[in-house]
Amino acid sequence: MRLLTLRTENGTKAVRQDGDTLTEIEGFSDVGALLKDPSWESIAAAATGATHPVEGADLDAVVPAPGKIICVGHNYRNHIKEMGREVPEYPTLFAKYAECLIGPDDDLALPQESDTVDWESELAVVIGKKGRRISEADAPAHIAGYAVLNDVSMRDYQFRTIQWLQGKTWEKSTPFGPALVTKDEFSGGLMTTAVDGEIQQSTPTNDVVFTPEFLVSYISTIITLNPGDVIATGTPGGVGHAQDPKRYLQEGQILVTTIEGLGQLNNRVVKES
Amino acid sequence: MRLLTLRTENGTKAVRQDGDTLTEIEGFSDVGALLKDPSWESIAAAATGATHPVEGADLDAVVPAPGKIICVGHNYRNHIKEMGREVPEYPTLFAKYAECLIGPDDDLALPQESDTVDWESELAVVIGKKGRRISEADAPAHIAGYAVLNDVSMRDYQFRTIQWLQGKTWEKSTPFGPALVTKDEFSGGLMTTAVDGEIQQSTPTNDVVFTPEFLVSYISTIITLNPGDVIATGTPGGVGHAQDPKRYLQEGQILVTTIEGLGQLNNRVVKES
Repeated sequence: MRLLTLRTENGTKAVRQDGDTLTEIEGFSDVGALLKDPSWESIAAAATGATHPVEGADLDAVVPAPGKIICVGHNYRNHIKEMGREVPEYPTLFAKYAECLIGPDDDLALPQESDTVDWESELAVVIGKKGRRISEADAPAHIAGYAVLNDVSMRDYQFRTIQWLQGKTWEKSTPFGPALVTKDEFSGGLMTTAVDGEIQQSTPTNDVVFTPEFLVSYISTIITLNPGDVIATGTPGGVGHAQDPKRYLQEGQILVTTIEGLGQLNNRVVKES
Repeated sequence: MRLLTLRTENGTKAVRQDGDTLTEIEGFSDVGALLKDPSWESIAAAATGATHPVEGADLDAVVPAPGKIICVGHNYRNHIKEMGREVPEYPTLFAKYAECLIGPDDDLALPQESDTVDWESELAVVIGKKGRRISEADAPAHIAGYAVLNDVSMRDYQFRTIQWLQGKTWEKSTPFGPALVTKDEFSGGLMTTAVDGEIQQSTPTNDVVFTPEFLVSYISTIITLNPGDVIATGTPGGVGHAQDPKRYLQEGQILVTTIEGLGQLNNRVVKES
C-alpha cells in the first residue's frame, strides 16, 4: 500500500494511491496523523473518500511533522570510505527538526548563508507502532514502511563545530516522500541521486552496516519510538563534498532522488530571497 | 510572571504562580500550548481559573513537548577549559527530543544500559514568538522567558561516536522547570548543581561566550524558531566526567539544580527496572 499526504484547498489530507488515483482517508490530515491510529493499516486499506488524480497532485512531505527525525551517519560502506572513516561499531546518530522538510516536488531552499549545499540520498524508515527497547526480531512490527529522503547538508555549517546539527536542519531543505510504502511491499532497491540528470550516487539500499531493524532496536533502547517518527538511515558514496573537485548544489539545478520501488523526489534548487 | 504546567486529575493545566497559589489559565493544557497564542502574556496575567496550593503541586516539565530542544555545547568558559577545548568561534549545537523531559520533582531514570550518567545544569531559553533570521536586537521580543534544565548526559553513549545525540536524549532523564519566568523578571543569576547536598557546579549564568540573544539570532538563521521551542544554553564547569576521579549519578541520589531567581529542580535518581 502507498500512502501520501496531499495538499488540497481544504488543507492536507492523508490519501491512498491505487494506480493513477489518490483516495482520501477521511478524518486524517496527513500520514503522520493516520499512523497515530493503531488501526491505520486497515483504515487506509478500506478508505473510500474523495478521489484525485496522481498527475498534478500537490504533495506535502509524506509525514509533514514527525515527532522525531533521527539521522544515521556512516552507514554505507562506500560513503564511510569516501569520508575517510572506519567501519563503525555503533551507529552515529544526529537530528533534524521538522521545519527542514519539504514535499517531493517542492522547491529546495538554497540559503543566502551557504554555498556548500550537498546531497545525501537516504532510505527513510517510518515508525508505525510505539515502542521502547524493541528487539531486532520485533522491529518489523514497529516499522510502518519506507520512503525516500534527501538529507541535504550545508557542509560549511556542518563542519563549523564538531556537532553536525547546524548543517543538517536548514529550513525547507530536506525533501521527503513521495509515499510511505508499507513494509510488505519493499525489501530494498537501487538508490540514485541525479543533479540535472547526471548520476551522483547509485547504491542498493541494503549495502549497509546497520539495517533498519537494528536501528529501530538501537534507538529505542535510548528513547521511545512513536508512530510517525522517522529514521533516515544514512547515505551511500557520491556526495559532492567528497568529489574532487568538490561539487555543491547551484541555483536552478534539479535534484532527483530515487529509490527503486519507493518513488522519486524532484526538487528544484531555488535561492532564498 | 511565573508560568508552570500542573498535573491534575483532569490532565495537565497551564497555571500562573502568585506567591503560594497557582491559578489555572483556562483553555490551555500546558505552558507550550499557552505560548502558541500570540496574546499569551495578557491571557496569563488576566487568568482567574481554579486555584491550587504551590505546596504539594505535581508539576510537569514546564513545556512538556517542545517542537524543538536545541542544546548548546561549549558555552561557559570554565566548562570549555575542563573539557580541553578552545573558546569557540561558533556555538556548538545538538538536539534532544521531547521524550527525555521530566518535571521538576520527578524521578530521573537511570537506565540499565549506562553507568556514566552525568549532570549539566543549564539556563533554558523558551521562545514566545515565531521568527526566522531574527537579529540580536530583535531577539528579546522572541524570548518568552527562562527556566532551569539539567542536560543529563550518558557519557558512554555520548562518546560512542563523534555525534553526541545518543548520550543526550535518554527517556525521562532531563528535568525542566519548575517555571517559565518571563524575561522582564530575570537578568541572570547564580546556577548551582548539588548531588546529595554536595555542590558540583556553581557559576553565574551570564559567564558565557554566546548570550541568549545571540543564540536566538544564530539558530533562527538556520531554522524558524516557534513558540515553545527551547534553547538549552550550555553548562558551566564541574561536570562529573571532568572530575578526577570521574563521578557519575548513582541510584538513590538527589540531583538539585538551581538558578537564583528561576527556581529549583529536585530529582531523585531511580534505576529503571
